Amino acid sequence: MDNTELTIKTDKIYDGKILKLRVDTVELPNAKYSKREIIEHHPAVCVVALTDDDEILMVSQYRKPLDKTLLEIPAGGIELDELPKDAAARELLEETGYRADTMEYLCEFYTTPGFCTEKIHAFFATNLTLAAQDLDHDEFIEVEKIPFDDIIKRIGRCEISDGKSIAAVLYYNTFRRNQ
Amino acid sequence: MDNTELTIKTDKIYDGKILKLRVDTVELPNAKYSKREIIEHHPAVCVVALTDDDEILMVSQYRKPLDKTLLEIPAGGIELDELPKDAAARELLEETGYRADTMEYLCEFYTTPGFCTEKIHAFFATNLTLAAQDLDHDEFIEVEKIPFDDIIKRIGRCEISDGKSIAAVLYYNTFRRNQ
Repeated sequence: MDNTELTIKTDKIYDGKILKLRVDTVELPNAKYSKREIIEHHPAVCVVALTDDDEILMVSQYRKPLDKTLLEIPAGGIELDELPKDAAARELLEETGYRADTMEYLCEFYTTPGFCTEKIHAFFATNLTLAAQDLDHDEFIEVEKIPFDDIIKRIGRCEISDGKSIAAVLYYNTFRRNQ
Repeated sequence: MDNTELTIKTDKIYDGKILKLRVDTVELPNAKYSKREIIEHHPAVCVVALTDDDEILMVSQYRKPLDKTLLEIPAGGIELDELPKDAAARELLEETGYRADTMEYLCEFYTTPGFCTEKIHAFFATNLTLAAQDLDHDEFIEVEKIPFDDIIKRIGRCEISDGKSIAAVLYYNTFRRNQ
């Protein structure tokens, strides 16, 4: 069945620094109309980065929407004309100070397909060497190295509450660990 | 270190059907200012639902932001004064037509903590009995029953591109399967 929704009208509400908001009036498969509120967000990357001692690099970052600090894997937006893999290497270096000699593709997924265009490409980084952190002017991030087995236990105990981190780490653990 | 960002000013940009947009001017830990674009979205639920034949219930749904149809686990918003567990049972019934005698909590996570407040509570449903699908007027959803082992293989081949489905199914598979 084709459930494509035809756009009848688009209202552009907001064009900001990291996102845009538009409201589409759509024709539904039953020929009725509805509104779709859509956040346009650039694609992003996230990185499961493991040291030679089998520790995962996590970043602790205050998140204004939640008014709390979360522990997440390194991540960030892909810049214009940048390849996802290059963005992953750049974000890993900027946020953690580590350079990865090996950067492998894991998977990709939409974070909130119901209302947002954002897609995240997940990578797996190894052969890390310490260089220097280089944060954006409005980023305040602390790096934690956590034994990989511990991060799995912490996910199991629901102590990691960032969706992309759960998806990417468990993807790596299920399909690429010990392969 | 306390990296809390103090709100100096809030501009309310949009108040819609499923989301709100506000822009906060914040004072950073270094006493400089920045803007945070924040999507306010109600909490949601998603359900890993397994039939007695060890098939997972998936829903195929056109997603306007991506202009494509995705295969996802059943999910939806929590209504006012509704418990997450009740929302999970209601959404499962509405979207798939199945009633669950057993609904267990799995985990919870933020879908996009960088710019959105949305939290998803994930559940695991068993002892399913078929009743009747009851979709919202603007929902067009097809239900697929897929052997659980196959869904794991499809996630591994990157054929499932919905983040919450990857996170919740792999969480169940890693921590609750065969326990």
